[in-house]
Amino acid sequence: MLSLKTTSSQRWLDLAAANLPELLIDHAHCEKKAAGTAMNLLFAYVENVDLCRAMTEIVQEELAHFHMVLDILAAREIPFRKLSPSSYGRRLNDLVSKQEPHRAIDRLLVAGLIEARSCERFGLLRDHLPDQQLADFFGGLFESEARHHSTYVRLAKCFGSEDEIRLRLEELADAEAAIIAAGDDVPRMHS
Amino acid sequence: MLSLKTTSSQRWLDLAAANLPELLIDHAHCEKKAAGTAMNLLFAYVENVDLCRAMTEIVQEELAHFHMVLDILAAREIPFRKLSPSSYGRRLNDLVSKQEPHRAIDRLLVAGLIEARSCERFGLLRDHLPDQQLADFFGGLFESEARHHSTYVRLAKCFGSEDEIRLRLEELADAEAAIIAAGDDVPRMHS
Repeated sequence: MLSLKTTSSQRWLDLAAANLPELLIDHAHCEKKAAGTAMNLLFAYVENVDLCRAMTEIVQEELAHFHMVLDILAAREIPFRKLSPSSYGRRLNDLVSKQEPHRAIDRLLVAGLIEARSCERFGLLRDHLPDQQLADFFGGLFESEARHHSTYVRLAKCFGSEDEIRLRLEELADAEAAIIAAGDDVPRMHS
Repeated sequence: MLSLKTTSSQRWLDLAAANLPELLIDHAHCEKKAAGTAMNLLFAYVENVDLCRAMTEIVQEELAHFHMVLDILAAREIPFRKLSPSSYGRRLNDLVSKQEPHRAIDRLLVAGLIEARSCERFGLLRDHLPDQQLADFFGGLFESEARHHSTYVRLAKCFGSEDEIRLRLEELADAEAAIIAAGDDVPRMHS
């Protein structure tokens, strides 16, 4: 699905469904981090007008999602708080090249893979959560994550040839699948 | 005006008016940095719901302004590019305490003073630029900068007493006035 090499395990879905308050708090942080990632990319490659416009849209959408999750937390009287993240983001970011233009390509593709994984998991939550309000909520985010994935992969092509991007996306998607397979034993959106 | 201790000099206005392309490029970067500052504050104090909502609004408004400036640059065929900033932001940020909760107060008050100075200068450009399109554009931004100033000062009061904030704002405003008086000999929004 999208560029992903694997689907999420039943183990992850069970852990998520059994710990919805913690999952929601982590989800809020993920939306905030997604906005931060887009903002960082805007700062790093500000002379690329196409990238600037796309990152601005993503910042705005992710912040809107962040507030949607905060509203759900408030309605359910779940206090929002800091939460240790899963190791997923750090492990993926460790794969990013230090050298431009490879760095730009890697940052964009890693961001795209994270969006793809979110999308896949939102689909699972939409299809399997017995809590219909949350199932609908996650289903409503599915499309925008898929769109963000495509935007990131398209923008990577500003920094390298079509072939280079395809090959690197394959490599990074393999690494992403391995990171997800290793997993973290905590209920997180990307554990 | 607002919390500022001084008004800008004729020297600055003359330098700005004589170098509008460079001023506009710097202005675009300032709007981008203002969005980045609000995003950083959101990340740092994410458990404060009031602050989170306010920072989200500021991020969105500053990014909208950033794109308005990019559109003006494009319409005037002025290539957008990286540009060394004035030393104003760095000098102000050097005054920020390393220790919480003073750090939160200082970060918010410094952000508020920068908004106040932008506001004051947008007012000057509105009133004195012969280029009516730009004069109107800067005039249109005046109100939002004044509002952001008030938001930052109001939020600082989440982290200290009314008296403490008033005194610290006085100190920082004195420092800001000295930094502006020293100036930079380059045409920048905050030189």
